[in-house]
Amino acid sequence: MNCKDLFARVKEMQPLVHHLTNNVTINDCANVTLAIGGSPVMATSIEEVADMAQLAQALVINFGTIDDAMYEAMIVAGQAANQKGIPVVFDPVGVGATPFRTNRAKDYLGKVKISVVRGNASEVFALIGGEVQTRGVDAGDVAISKKELAVKAAQQLNTITVISGEVDYVSNGTEVVGIENGDIWLTRITGTGCTTASLIAAFAGSTDDWFAASVAGMSTMSLAGERAKKRLSENDGIGTYRLKLMDEISLMNGDIWEEGVRLI
Amino acid sequence: MNCKDLFARVKEMQPLVHHLTNNVTINDCANVTLAIGGSPVMATSIEEVADMAQLAQALVINFGTIDDAMYEAMIVAGQAANQKGIPVVFDPVGVGATPFRTNRAKDYLGKVKISVVRGNASEVFALIGGEVQTRGVDAGDVAISKKELAVKAAQQLNTITVISGEVDYVSNGTEVVGIENGDIWLTRITGTGCTTASLIAAFAGSTDDWFAASVAGMSTMSLAGERAKKRLSENDGIGTYRLKLMDEISLMNGDIWEEGVRLI
Amino acid sequence: MNCKDLFARVKEMQPLVHHLTNNVTINDCANVTLAIGGSPVMATSIEEVADMAQLAQALVINFGTIDDAMYEAMIVAGQAANQKGIPVVFDPVGVGATPFRTNRAKDYLGKVKISVVRGNASEVFALIGGEVQTRGVDAGDVAISKKELAVKAAQQLNTITVISGEVDYVSNGTEVVGIENGDIWLTRITGTGCTTASLIAAFAGSTDDWFAASVAGMSTMSLAGERAKKRLSENDGIGTYRLKLMDEISLMNGDIWEEGVRLI
Repeated sequence: MNCKDLFARVKEMQPLVHHLTNNVTINDCANVTLAIGGSPVMATSIEEVADMAQLAQALVINFGTIDDAMYEAMIVAGQAANQKGIPVVFDPVGVGATPFRTNRAKDYLGKVKISVVRGNASEVFALIGGEVQTRGVDAGDVAISKKELAVKAAQQLNTITVISGEVDYVSNGTEVVGIENGDIWLTRITGTGCTTASLIAAFAGSTDDWFAASVAGMSTMSLAGERAKKRLSENDGIGTYRLKLMDEISLMNGDIWEEGVRLI
Repeated sequence: MNCKDLFARVKEMQPLVHHLTNNVTINDCANVTLAIGGSPVMATSIEEVADMAQLAQALVINFGTIDDAMYEAMIVAGQAANQKGIPVVFDPVGVGATPFRTNRAKDYLGKVKISVVRGNASEVFALIGGEVQTRGVDAGDVAISKKELAVKAAQQLNTITVISGEVDYVSNGTEVVGIENGDIWLTRITGTGCTTASLIAAFAGSTDDWFAASVAGMSTMSLAGERAKKRLSENDGIGTYRLKLMDEISLMNGDIWEEGVRLI
Repeated sequence: MNCKDLFARVKEMQPLVHHLTNNVTINDCANVTLAIGGSPVMATSIEEVADMAQLAQALVINFGTIDDAMYEAMIVAGQAANQKGIPVVFDPVGVGATPFRTNRAKDYLGKVKISVVRGNASEVFALIGGEVQTRGVDAGDVAISKKELAVKAAQQLNTITVISGEVDYVSNGTEVVGIENGDIWLTRITGTGCTTASLIAAFAGSTDDWFAASVAGMSTMSLAGERAKKRLSENDGIGTYRLKLMDEISLMNGDIWEEGVRLI
């Protein structure tokens, strides 16, 4: 697994990352994709998503604000991505909160081959059939360690699984990597989960090693969040934090990453 | 009415605030909800909005970019909120500008019990049947003082009414509170009205005193807007202002509020 | 052509700029419209877009995330704008990337009289029937100089044409103006094309000279982008750049523009 080289690689390849995502953080997803070196496209009409996915190097599917029209387009886009062999990164936002989301997520797993699932523990737990107490789209508690959950979900779903948390875990079902970086303020702004999926997809669109891409994407967000916090002054609040986070993502490179990342 | 304690209370309770809102400021609404201590969720599919509203502690309905599908979902969500007894904060964006908006708003008032209406004077005036000259979604002139309008609308609509302006007014039909804080630059960025509704909803989701919550929410925005302006340097424009506003909202607490607020 | 006076004029007239635009940059479009002195409205329901366009002084049509419902509303809004005689600024985002976009764009040109087309070279080239290799919504290469393309497209489409690039070109089919300002970082954040269309529309809603409005709008973005870059410190990334860009747009006036712009 060579994460370090991916930072230069994504800037060189500028992979087109096709997103079918939510209306809340769609702008952040586009800007983060650009910040790391990728090229975002957000087409969602069912009439063009297959064509667009065929042009892309990676696809992000995010359930944040799905409705039926969006869901149908996600199936078409996902199947086109599968046909082309590009990675599909799935962010099961809010799965477990309502039957609608949980059912659509399970249905989706049966129709599209997912490469990487990225969620918080309760979402991933719900995805593999666990009973969760969620509160909307934010993380609830689950009766299993996050590390165990990452491995189990990766095995059961036959994907790479990325679980965000105080320590993040990335597993392909056999290996598991923990990421100790991060900052609690990452949970105080919306969209840091969604944009982590964009980072993973941008890296995965630049390499065949989607496990390395997942570790690189998740750790870029956690390390950038940690570095951004250190750059705050006394009277800075979450507006400034959000700006510094975007700065740090755009400034990240292999050297900064290697020096700052704490993998276990 | 104890507004001061609500700042600690919302952070402790982290109320889930379900929004059915517009695509323009949806990200700001989510971030402001987080900044004050609440937890935002933006689900809009008619198939899940009732379930999500049942999980929530408050509901925001914002007419900014409604279409028929959104409107139908708003009815379902609003009725679920009514059934659960959680507060419904209604932001009648642009009502008075087109017959479509005005008719839908009046129809909505007949189908869902609203707890708090928050708008500018022309929107609220249109809502109670006044003739207004609006310009899109921004404030037009009305032939009644804002204070009078707040009281009259509260009585006629049987809700708490919040009217944003140079002085903001909050009334429950008997009492009326004016808020002298604010800054003209709050009108130079989009979404400060929408996010005020999010603040009110977050507070209202943390207390039974929705009048106090409305005063706390409206005055938080006006005071934060005033404080943000004071933190600008000479060459700062509205980009920096917007960031400082978000900072000030996230830094607001009972002490800062008590020291800075000017109620009349 | 008097661009300089337009900065005061737009602030005085506060033209209502109706947008039917994409979900990615809709917030930026609203804030940029406000920053330059206009008043944005983003209504998209087919039931009200004609009424709203009738209230407006300019209309922006942006293809970023179109679907069939949005497309139908764009036709209704565009025809209402034509009837009232207000300028229609068309941003053919991603045209050339998928047959869906290209066909809809050509269909749209037959149904609505466009005043100004603003795009990158590959989009405009596709619009006039050229064969392009696009990568999603970002610029691809075309086998014609941008200056030539601006003139040719203006003649063929019978509109003013604005082509963004290292040097921007604005043509009405007989005259052509080049704008040498700009910065490569304008391509590292999403939405600087979309918001340029908002600037052009705000100016065009304040004058009958839509050619001057197009030069003023395009050059405001390029000059603001250049000035924003100069204000960055060593560790600033694209988050800070985006904020400074918004600052510079909001601070722009006739004097700053005249001193900084480099037209050829």
